[in-house]
Amino acid sequence: MDYTSVNLKEKMSKFSDHWSPKIIAQMNDYHFKLVKFKGDFVWHRHHDTDEVFMVLDGKMSIEFRDGSVELKSGEMFVVPKGMEHKPFAERECKIMLVEPAGTVNTGDAGGGMTVEESTWI
Amino acid sequence: MDYTSVNLKEKMSKFSDHWSPKIIAQMNDYHFKLVKFKGDFVWHRHHDTDEVFMVLDGKMSIEFRDGSVELKSGEMFVVPKGMEHKPFAERECKIMLVEPAGTVNTGDAGGGMTVEESTWI
Repeated sequence: MDYTSVNLKEKMSKFSDHWSPKIIAQMNDYHFKLVKFKGDFVWHRHHDTDEVFMVLDGKMSIEFRDGSVELKSGEMFVVPKGMEHKPFAERECKIMLVEPAGTVNTGDAGGGMTVEESTWI
Repeated sequence: MDYTSVNLKEKMSKFSDHWSPKIIAQMNDYHFKLVKFKGDFVWHRHHDTDEVFMVLDGKMSIEFRDGSVELKSGEMFVVPKGMEHKPFAERECKIMLVEPAGTVNTGDAGGGMTVEESTWI
């Protein structure tokens, strides 16, 4: 049988919109997603799951109510379940997310930046 | 509060042994692990979970009973639950694994390369 690897750069080149995660792989009931950040996202939380951010290119920060973390290429952070956070990137930043399938990008916050269902690329 | 990112290269520099995954992060009941491969691993399978391989530096292959996949830096592959596989790397290759906490590296095969419990670095 012919097995095919998932090339992150090749997948990243398939879209250009910001804040709209695209699914590239599934492991059990978890999705691996690619997303491009630029500017400010909305404050939100995920009540039922942790969320992994891994920066593939660029730099970004995640603000919390009591602090923040800076992430650059080759760095990751796990946002704990239930913790309010707001991603930010001054310039376009390329990120991989790992989270349960069906996790909505804006969590409990809703609003215009919500993507109810991510698509596969 | 002070939040700290996980730097993959910095973590990778903390160990030099082969085939012995080290835990760098936890998301829900899943572990993110770093591991260095060199040479042949053993044929094995994980009966209860998929397993993610992501190459951070170098190249490797995963053999299956009916084919194989080549992975180089920036590429990933999800080995399906229950599928027999054998990782191989001609030269040292640096990999990130994502799998449920407690997953044993040799799966159902056992033997001398088994690491019953990975350590955090």
